[in-house]
Amino acid sequence: MPDFTPTPRSRVKRLNQRAHYDVETVHRLIDEIGTGSVGYVIEGEPHVTPTLVWREGDKVYWHGSSASRMLKTVRGGVPVCVNVFHLDGLVLARSGMHSSVNYRSVTLFGSAAPVEGEQAKEASLRAFLDRFVPGRWDNLHPINKQELKATMVVSMTIEEASAKIRTGHCADDEEDYALDIWAGIVPVTTVIGTPEPDPRNKAGIAAPAYLDNVRIG
Amino acid sequence: MPDFTPTPRSRVKRLNQRAHYDVETVHRLIDEIGTGSVGYVIEGEPHVTPTLVWREGDKVYWHGSSASRMLKTVRGGVPVCVNVFHLDGLVLARSGMHSSVNYRSVTLFGSAAPVEGEQAKEASLRAFLDRFVPGRWDNLHPINKQELKATMVVSMTIEEASAKIRTGHCADDEEDYALDIWAGIVPVTTVIGTPEPDPRNKAGIAAPAYLDNVRIG
Repeated sequence: MPDFTPTPRSRVKRLNQRAHYDVETVHRLIDEIGTGSVGYVIEGEPHVTPTLVWREGDKVYWHGSSASRMLKTVRGGVPVCVNVFHLDGLVLARSGMHSSVNYRSVTLFGSAAPVEGEQAKEASLRAFLDRFVPGRWDNLHPINKQELKATMVVSMTIEEASAKIRTGHCADDEEDYALDIWAGIVPVTTVIGTPEPDPRNKAGIAAPAYLDNVRIG
Repeated sequence: MPDFTPTPRSRVKRLNQRAHYDVETVHRLIDEIGTGSVGYVIEGEPHVTPTLVWREGDKVYWHGSSASRMLKTVRGGVPVCVNVFHLDGLVLARSGMHSSVNYRSVTLFGSAAPVEGEQAKEASLRAFLDRFVPGRWDNLHPINKQELKATMVVSMTIEEASAKIRTGHCADDEEDYALDIWAGIVPVTTVIGTPEPDPRNKAGIAAPAYLDNVRIG
């Protein structure tokens, strides 16, 4: 796949040494982080809805109820912006000015369309669950027609994208390194905790091994 | 402060048993989470920018470079939507349909204005750092006029707001509780890690005690 070409809409203006437009970085961040903020316009006004996002090829997907206003809006082929972001740490410098944060962020532009057809929709939902809880789909009560009807999946071909990543320590003014001030990074991570069984689980049902493979952040 | 009155723009349409419009919940989520997605419109198209946000009274704040396109856009008094979100867990049900996520989310609407004046700007930046790393501001190389000029702080009076919170286990179809399927919650938490000192710290500078008070998520 070709890399993304920045346009006035997607070019990173500030601190562009942190910018990446290669398709590998853009896809990797979507795949690592898994949460996204969907931006869209209703009657000229901005709206932002958080959701889980996943990727297949050059498309990003999200889902929800068929009654969702967000999904009904974006399925209309209107312009959509999806930002996928993870805060990785506070970068404490010796001045406020050079204090910063470490993060991974990717912003995607395109227009979304509903995934149509029962088979395609079911395949998308399987891919969705496989991304977050690999191996679970086949263990579930199979999805039925009514449930598929109640669920909307949208896909957006990524037309434009820019990633922005900051890592590492601060870059203080040279004279500030002589100050008696502690500088450093306070890491911020997303941690998957120990699964909490539903009190209504049947006796003897153990937590499945695939829960070790849950990936977010 | 009075609670928020939902309008067509801010009313939670889907799963409105999860909705909250009371000022206490709205403020609490902003104060707990600390990261936000700022949505705004440029030439009719949506843009979403992630940033750290903090609150004072009925206003939410964020900051950045005076050269930031996002800040230059939103300071113009245009409509802005800020979503503050934290994923708290995957809720694994016995069917895909009832699988869900636990989360805290609050969506804020208003229009932003720059904080003007050196004193007011400096006070805002102090409040910002106090929110994330309480106690650090007074230990830093004091901010100077040039740094203040290079920094923009915007505040947005929260005109409309809605919070949406999901907690607890799944609500499966009654007959599915008889299935031999493990159900439960996979918790997702934000963890503040052990501070990593800058290799250029002066010898003998210990990590300050206030680093234990860093709060995000």
